[in-house]
Amino acid sequence: MTAMDGSLEMMIVMKEGAADAEVEHVLTRLREAGARGHISTGDVVTVIGVIGDREVIAGMPLEAFPGVDKVLPILRPYKLVSREFRSTDTVISIGGGKIGGGHFGLIAGPCSVESREQLLESARFVKEAGATMLRGGAFKPRTSPYAFQGMGVEALKILAEARAETGLPVVTELMDPRQLDDVVEYADVIQIGARNMQNFHLLSAVGEVARPVLLKRGLSATVDELLMAAEYIVKEGNADVILCERGIRTFETATRNTLDIAAIPIIKQRCHLPVIVDPSHATGRIDLIEPLSLAAVAAGADGLLIEAHPMPETALCDGGQSLNPRDFARIATRIHEMVTWVGKTLG
Amino acid sequence: MTAMDGSLEMMIVMKEGAADAEVEHVLTRLREAGARGHISTGDVVTVIGVIGDREVIAGMPLEAFPGVDKVLPILRPYKLVSREFRSTDTVISIGGGKIGGGHFGLIAGPCSVESREQLLESARFVKEAGATMLRGGAFKPRTSPYAFQGMGVEALKILAEARAETGLPVVTELMDPRQLDDVVEYADVIQIGARNMQNFHLLSAVGEVARPVLLKRGLSATVDELLMAAEYIVKEGNADVILCERGIRTFETATRNTLDIAAIPIIKQRCHLPVIVDPSHATGRIDLIEPLSLAAVAAGADGLLIEAHPMPETALCDGGQSLNPRDFARIATRIHEMVTWVGKTLG
Amino acid sequence: MTAMDGSLEMMIVMKEGAADAEVEHVLTRLREAGARGHISTGDVVTVIGVIGDREVIAGMPLEAFPGVDKVLPILRPYKLVSREFRSTDTVISIGGGKIGGGHFGLIAGPCSVESREQLLESARFVKEAGATMLRGGAFKPRTSPYAFQGMGVEALKILAEARAETGLPVVTELMDPRQLDDVVEYADVIQIGARNMQNFHLLSAVGEVARPVLLKRGLSATVDELLMAAEYIVKEGNADVILCERGIRTFETATRNTLDIAAIPIIKQRCHLPVIVDPSHATGRIDLIEPLSLAAVAAGADGLLIEAHPMPETALCDGGQSLNPRDFARIATRIHEMVTWVGKTLG
Amino acid sequence: MTAMDGSLEMMIVMKEGAADAEVEHVLTRLREAGARGHISTGDVVTVIGVIGDREVIAGMPLEAFPGVDKVLPILRPYKLVSREFRSTDTVISIGGGKIGGGHFGLIAGPCSVESREQLLESARFVKEAGATMLRGGAFKPRTSPYAFQGMGVEALKILAEARAETGLPVVTELMDPRQLDDVVEYADVIQIGARNMQNFHLLSAVGEVARPVLLKRGLSATVDELLMAAEYIVKEGNADVILCERGIRTFETATRNTLDIAAIPIIKQRCHLPVIVDPSHATGRIDLIEPLSLAAVAAGADGLLIEAHPMPETALCDGGQSLNPRDFARIATRIHEMVTWVGKTLG
Repeated sequence: MTAMDGSLEMMIVMKEGAADAEVEHVLTRLREAGARGHISTGDVVTVIGVIGDREVIAGMPLEAFPGVDKVLPILRPYKLVSREFRSTDTVISIGGGKIGGGHFGLIAGPCSVESREQLLESARFVKEAGATMLRGGAFKPRTSPYAFQGMGVEALKILAEARAETGLPVVTELMDPRQLDDVVEYADVIQIGARNMQNFHLLSAVGEVARPVLLKRGLSATVDELLMAAEYIVKEGNADVILCERGIRTFETATRNTLDIAAIPIIKQRCHLPVIVDPSHATGRIDLIEPLSLAAVAAGADGLLIEAHPMPETALCDGGQSLNPRDFARIATRIHEMVTWVGKTLG
Repeated sequence: MTAMDGSLEMMIVMKEGAADAEVEHVLTRLREAGARGHISTGDVVTVIGVIGDREVIAGMPLEAFPGVDKVLPILRPYKLVSREFRSTDTVISIGGGKIGGGHFGLIAGPCSVESREQLLESARFVKEAGATMLRGGAFKPRTSPYAFQGMGVEALKILAEARAETGLPVVTELMDPRQLDDVVEYADVIQIGARNMQNFHLLSAVGEVARPVLLKRGLSATVDELLMAAEYIVKEGNADVILCERGIRTFETATRNTLDIAAIPIIKQRCHLPVIVDPSHATGRIDLIEPLSLAAVAAGADGLLIEAHPMPETALCDGGQSLNPRDFARIATRIHEMVTWVGKTLG
Repeated sequence: MTAMDGSLEMMIVMKEGAADAEVEHVLTRLREAGARGHISTGDVVTVIGVIGDREVIAGMPLEAFPGVDKVLPILRPYKLVSREFRSTDTVISIGGGKIGGGHFGLIAGPCSVESREQLLESARFVKEAGATMLRGGAFKPRTSPYAFQGMGVEALKILAEARAETGLPVVTELMDPRQLDDVVEYADVIQIGARNMQNFHLLSAVGEVARPVLLKRGLSATVDELLMAAEYIVKEGNADVILCERGIRTFETATRNTLDIAAIPIIKQRCHLPVIVDPSHATGRIDLIEPLSLAAVAAGADGLLIEAHPMPETALCDGGQSLNPRDFARIATRIHEMVTWVGKTLG
Repeated sequence: MTAMDGSLEMMIVMKEGAADAEVEHVLTRLREAGARGHISTGDVVTVIGVIGDREVIAGMPLEAFPGVDKVLPILRPYKLVSREFRSTDTVISIGGGKIGGGHFGLIAGPCSVESREQLLESARFVKEAGATMLRGGAFKPRTSPYAFQGMGVEALKILAEARAETGLPVVTELMDPRQLDDVVEYADVIQIGARNMQNFHLLSAVGEVARPVLLKRGLSATVDELLMAAEYIVKEGNADVILCERGIRTFETATRNTLDIAAIPIIKQRCHLPVIVDPSHATGRIDLIEPLSLAAVAAGADGLLIEAHPMPETALCDGGQSLNPRDFARIATRIHEMVTWVGKTLG
């Protein structure tokens, strides 16, 4: 039994037959960096446990040292967002409502704000069906440069008008740090899209403002990378981050992405922040919104982000995955019933 | 408007600037094969719709013809398992119970049969908790040749004894066509594992016997490939196939595999067979069994396949993902409640 | 045979048994949008070929229309970067050298500029070994907010000094549109990192300046999405884009990413821009740089982007995948030999 | 420094705040299993190094023990195929030729034997172009039960006839242990297809015969899983295994699979067996065979497996990825030049 003073950060596994001098070299470099190594030598390989300051050690290219086979991290790389840092669920207040810790958020609305009429009508029907927040894009990330790119600041003003009329807090995406002030002025929640999950300057920027952030998981991001992205925001002082699972990219082509339903309980084990699910982007198919929404609530999600549009056939973006008012109302009713079944309350 | 006599199987998209002779060559070869092509010529490319016998056309390497850019299939490649072939849900009778079409199956038991005592004890506690079938491996597919490979025919006899005592029908895996007779003699349902989903001789072999088959999705199989594998079985005359989603392989490492929850409703749209979910193999973690089981039922699954063991810490395989009797009983109760909530009945 | 006036953009496949009214509804909406549909009806399904303006049609959520099964695009979604638009290879002049069309670029240097000495020493040894451009990061995208984030503008000045001394053009990454002016002032080539491949505002911003852009493929981006991202840049007027394959994310964990070697010839078929490979990020392992560099040249790459550092063990980032001067010189010699073998010339 | 008597197999990382009793429980169970644990305790977590018999320890579900966070394996799970077991390259003699250790194998021929004429003609033209072995399928694994399934034993006899005429050793796939005797009677190399890479009974069966085995990597198998599959064969006594990289399944759809070019050098580091590449199945496109073949040789492959057919347009399977005689001859010449360039010899 070896008691070590300091936090055991990683284990360095040496190659079979590594020379003593190679082991010694690693130890020397650790000492120079203010860290320490504790050696365990078996018949076949030697393993070095490393104790010291995480940030210093993490920056050392230990796997490139002569004789090193691999480096196994012991501790997770995030702190502020971890369950170890905070054991109780974070509850975020938005407008008059809450999300997290038993409070469920149903966020709905169109992919993009297309006109004042379209957005106000959207706000009314999602409110009527029981949504607790309104979504709508002002700046749209589009794969094609030839597609509709959003109405910009004009859309932000329309969103604010819809909030004034319906009382629904407004969620909208920020793509560019140069538009942060505008978004903060008009929106209640700043969405960071999947393609910007590792746009680190954007993360830092929203970490400095007093607005909750809805952070979407990247298409090929691991759960731990999502939590690291959240750490970027929280580290700057903004602790109100909502995480959103929206499907990852796999070989399956029957759905646009593959909803990683297990990410919900995994994140809840590792992190204290609220987790919501976007079944619209996860599947790209309206006929899967209901089963995946119910599954998400059953698996422990704190909310849902659903695309709905007064007339999906005329939508300028994502019409194919947007629910019409009648279908949204029907599905919202089922969602409410499931929210009650799992013992949570809406808003 | 062009009305075509015959089934439109695929569209051949010619390259930009394809020569007339190349188009003519494709048409000639189609004619020689007893099929026909219908040309649509736009300003940029020419497209040829192909009408004819599916099996003949599918065998032609059209994408290799000069001037061809790509071939887009129009119809799905399976028939007997498709919703178009049979619009009502298939209901399979096993022992005294049923699965499919509103009947929910809860299949539970250990990864492998390790001893008479272990298996009988397993059968008793899963029966007590409400399981409708008993699982247990006699022949075990193990990644390592050094790991426990199962008790073989001895295990089959123990499974039959457990059925005699508890009344639970028995599900066990077949790995090798040379063991088919033994498995048919003792088991009620023949399981085909994920690694054998495209072991086509094995599929054909189980298609010729009078036992329901539980077919697991391969680790990197698409939904349509799973349905094609089922078609192999049904084509030989055995229409009683249960499909099982058990997680696919992705870049995420927090769970062993990624449960593709959307596969449940997608399969139900395309296919009339019952679909169940195996949360134990999908995640490899006991702490995710409950949320993923509830999610699967909420998403429309017709059953669950869950690993449980009298003493997981002593299990010879999959102990890390096996529930102990107390946890299984607790989770089974929640599953029953959710089954009722979605309007299905157990067994 | 049907001759159509206009470009055939997509085929709409109706569901089996779709009603005539559903087909009619699709045709009506196409007409309202200024497009036309040409119907082909087989025994089982109806297919509608769509002719009209690409941008209008692409925005219609046709897959959400009643009775529609799927929509198959016929033409690729990019124009300016396509081989059809320009059949000859684009050759880009940078400093006194060239890349593309038989001219091979060997870009090397450290992950990040850490000090004046480190960078100047790097510039000297990569120049000595035959590199044609110098890489070095001033602004670093780091997964962890606790890791070294780069020296910023100070680093840009050091890079310019290294260019003045060695004559090597300088490649550096831009992460934030607010830093565009600084990067343009000091650098010869603006790198857009993998995590920003779909940062569309950043793409548009670099499309408006007179500097070649090195665009890296995103970790889960398809080849066609990479080409769409390039289209964003070229559409704004900047035709000098170099594409970079740097590994995609898969389930394999032996390497950090999986180098998609087939992307090189695939891109060359579809696109006229130069394609280079980054074996350092693709694998994360120095012992794979040589075989993967040679493979990339053999497969047709127009250049390589390789991390090298005077003392990798002390590097503040990516030390584990950076070559030391001796190994870099040895591998550069082999690369030069292979470049000659395939009939290209350096720079 | 702790010297341990025995091989250090794994590190058990306890959860933060794990109770002393939980640590004690792990140690007790290890002792009961004949293994030992060595504790390292830092400020935050406790880590237990485990020394003992690999097969016993590997079977313990340690990750399911109370208080355990994760288990990190230290040693690789295979032995006989590892570089540590044998440092020199295995060279396999087949017919009069060799593969491995500087001997390069060019295996070519049609997907399946379709007729005596087709196969003999194939054998002649691949021989003429410099192939060292002939491939041809007698039993075909087909995704669709409606596709051509191979000519069976009749095909084996034709292959043997082609060998008699051309002197080329014959490679053919075995799908079912019931056909092993026939394949051994007629073939020189037994191919195990990608879909059977984890058909463990089949692996064991070919491990017991005196014929070299060509083992293809599964579509979603890791490199280490491929090596474990080879271990199954070698463990039974058959040391002549050739490994084959043939593309893995990813999200990219431009190619059928993604050739993992880095697998070649990675396998060579970890394993002493020959490694070849199948560019035909990796891409599914004839226009990529040349660049990917050259890349594979450049990256260190010991051979190539290429589909070629006298008249691809008439092929009953894989016609779209089969080279015609003229293209095969041209590409084979380039391959020979590259084989010489890397310092290997053909056959």
